[in-house]
Amino acid sequence: MSQHKFVLDESEMPTHWYNIVADLPTPPPPPLHPGTREPVGPDDLAPLFPIELIMQEVSGERFVEIPEAVREVYRQWRPSPLIRAVRLEEKLGTPARIYYKYEGVSPAGSHKVNTSVPQVYYNSLHGVKRLTTETGAGQWGTALAYACSLFGIDCEVWQVGTSFDTKPQRRTLIEVFGGKVHRSPSRLTESGKAFPEDHPGTLGIAISEAVEVAAQDPDSKYSLGSVLNHVLLHQTVIGEEALRQLAKAGEDKVDLVIGCAGGGSNFAGLAFPFVRENLTGNANARIVAVEPTSCPTMTRGDYRYDFGDTVGLTPLMKMYTLGHGFVPSTIHAGGLRYHGMAPLVSHAVHEGLIEPVALHQRECFETAIEFARTEGIVPAPESSHALAQMRREALAAKESGEEKVIVVGLSGHGLLELGAYDEYLSGRLEDDPLSEDSLQAALAEVPVV
Amino acid sequence: MSQHKFVLDESEMPTHWYNIVADLPTPPPPPLHPGTREPVGPDDLAPLFPIELIMQEVSGERFVEIPEAVREVYRQWRPSPLIRAVRLEEKLGTPARIYYKYEGVSPAGSHKVNTSVPQVYYNSLHGVKRLTTETGAGQWGTALAYACSLFGIDCEVWQVGTSFDTKPQRRTLIEVFGGKVHRSPSRLTESGKAFPEDHPGTLGIAISEAVEVAAQDPDSKYSLGSVLNHVLLHQTVIGEEALRQLAKAGEDKVDLVIGCAGGGSNFAGLAFPFVRENLTGNANARIVAVEPTSCPTMTRGDYRYDFGDTVGLTPLMKMYTLGHGFVPSTIHAGGLRYHGMAPLVSHAVHEGLIEPVALHQRECFETAIEFARTEGIVPAPESSHALAQMRREALAAKESGEEKVIVVGLSGHGLLELGAYDEYLSGRLEDDPLSEDSLQAALAEVPVV
Repeated sequence: MSQHKFVLDESEMPTHWYNIVADLPTPPPPPLHPGTREPVGPDDLAPLFPIELIMQEVSGERFVEIPEAVREVYRQWRPSPLIRAVRLEEKLGTPARIYYKYEGVSPAGSHKVNTSVPQVYYNSLHGVKRLTTETGAGQWGTALAYACSLFGIDCEVWQVGTSFDTKPQRRTLIEVFGGKVHRSPSRLTESGKAFPEDHPGTLGIAISEAVEVAAQDPDSKYSLGSVLNHVLLHQTVIGEEALRQLAKAGEDKVDLVIGCAGGGSNFAGLAFPFVRENLTGNANARIVAVEPTSCPTMTRGDYRYDFGDTVGLTPLMKMYTLGHGFVPSTIHAGGLRYHGMAPLVSHAVHEGLIEPVALHQRECFETAIEFARTEGIVPAPESSHALAQMRREALAAKESGEEKVIVVGLSGHGLLELGAYDEYLSGRLEDDPLSEDSLQAALAEVPVV
Repeated sequence: MSQHKFVLDESEMPTHWYNIVADLPTPPPPPLHPGTREPVGPDDLAPLFPIELIMQEVSGERFVEIPEAVREVYRQWRPSPLIRAVRLEEKLGTPARIYYKYEGVSPAGSHKVNTSVPQVYYNSLHGVKRLTTETGAGQWGTALAYACSLFGIDCEVWQVGTSFDTKPQRRTLIEVFGGKVHRSPSRLTESGKAFPEDHPGTLGIAISEAVEVAAQDPDSKYSLGSVLNHVLLHQTVIGEEALRQLAKAGEDKVDLVIGCAGGGSNFAGLAFPFVRENLTGNANARIVAVEPTSCPTMTRGDYRYDFGDTVGLTPLMKMYTLGHGFVPSTIHAGGLRYHGMAPLVSHAVHEGLIEPVALHQRECFETAIEFARTEGIVPAPESSHALAQMRREALAAKESGEEKVIVVGLSGHGLLELGAYDEYLSGRLEDDPLSEDSLQAALAEVPVV
């Protein structure tokens, strides 16, 4: 085994993002205006996003060119490595060949930079002075602050309360990149003031705050780190690279593609190009999305129209949802705490193109530590969900003796989540309970459209 | 500017480490036995190190082959990227071309893995069951724990007290990689018990503890993360790659090579291959080693024989030293707190081949933040010393209008040092005082040989 990291020459790098809408068997249901409940048009989105992103949001084109200015920034760390987990395979004693696509080499340590850079770039073309956003685990805020620093735009981040309280390093990192951080719910917005100041916060509340501020200031726009079509589009650079790298590795048949899914963008970024290969008859891979049992959007939620935020400022989107008022258990360490799932991912799950799975977090941490000790990378707790499912599949392949080819997405490193690792190692981390009552209550509040 | 990251094909990767001893104009003075004060021989080192490392320690061969098992592990992240800092150049408005060689992409986040992997590999050939070591900032302990996990050897780390107290994440990271961590001074060794339990610790004390434990257990050896010849040898893979990458970048003349120096291994790893090019008449670059003013070994220390540790268990080495009892100010954030300097680096400084410089830490943090906001990488506080000197040189080149080519070593990322960044950003970080009295007192205790 002389080679287990697969790179690409500059001439082999993807020049386009992939838009799955072009290949879906049925068109995804449109988002609806929160007031009129009519499909939203470009004009409705103009206060929040620049025109290029709006056009990408509604585009049906199969491929969208990556601007040269964005590719220039990407080149610093892209292609992200595709690595065969040789030592882990040996440890597990599996005949499966396991490849992981590692996004933690990016400036902000996760896949999020793949979309923050183009989003900020497009905003910079229109003289936008400030971008507002929310952040949960903190990775998105970091990625947006970094991209804003490159293009000279101010960045203001509403960080989910529990995350702000327990992860001061995350706030510092955003500040190092020049961003400004507020604990959410803040006293700066009407959306925030609707909740007590010591509320633990949710991604939904933080979104409401950031959207409110951007909508009221003509020099500001809003930026979202997941869920929307254009965000998923930007992330497909991951899967496009992976397909080329797998070809270089001599793998002409992939059996399984596994990613973790919170809002859905990391997952879609890796998986959608593989879904295309399935849809166009070039492949027949199982595509698996892993979520936490504490926030089981796809496995326990309803597929229906709901708000993307908690207060109800965003369009209604058809998606798997636990209800926009759902508050996941605070003991969960990962960043997979969003009540909904990207409409495109939801649609593909509903169509049977993607298989959702939910896992408990202790199994994920156990796998993450085994991974660190063999592959040398400390995974983000989110990514560890994908690894745990990969481990199950690799052990099943050992059982059945099948030489499966497994591709797993490693969305980021966990170096700013070592507190959670410490809790796990010292036996203080519990599996994540789901309150059946609060789930049913939240689902009951989803509007009927 | 289409390309600013320079990689190497597998066929272009260095196959050998470089040993500067072969090219030095005068031989470096030998280490002396702490008891007899006679030059130490291989037998004296046998209780602590495997034979391969001992032979490398005393080798005069110009090149030493990198074992295939080590190259296999290296390949996961090597070659480390050489990146032209295009955005920083623009920001500074300098005509200088700035290249940084970034070691933070390694599993442990720093250059330290370059030597931990071969050290553990050689120990694994002799059935060693446990390796002991010390760690200051924590990077070395992390790197050794990771390498031990790959080769199935136990790892026990004595972490300098202040570092243990203020950086729980660092301890957790070592534990994630399977290592065991003790606060130094511990109650487990005679060396540790010689100091009060709440003593802030020094690298010298921690070395004493780790050496004592290894020397008393036939199944254990000791592993050092810097200072010794074989450690510096392993790190030269950095400079060897950089020379090849610069050739790919079309740079046939380098004007300046800058690295930070604590124990000296990161600095030597980058710089020694460039010193060779100077010595063999192929180049005429200035080679600059940057240290903190709070621990100014090369700029304020004496060049004489001193112990490598605090208690006096190690051989006496001819080196720049502040005295083995020197305790640097605890307010300094970086890991450049060692009282001595690698004998080979010291010798090269003494011979005028390397130019030492000392900088205050606030300038270093200021530069680090500018670097993060342009290049997207949060530097280790140690590395920021090299960046700050690079910035001075780039601004001088702007003043003089010279198109200088500057190569700077970025030894690791600072993601586990965000507490120090927070102190800087909030204005709580002070420049690091040097107590003239304690320096003179420590120098007075250096033995006369």
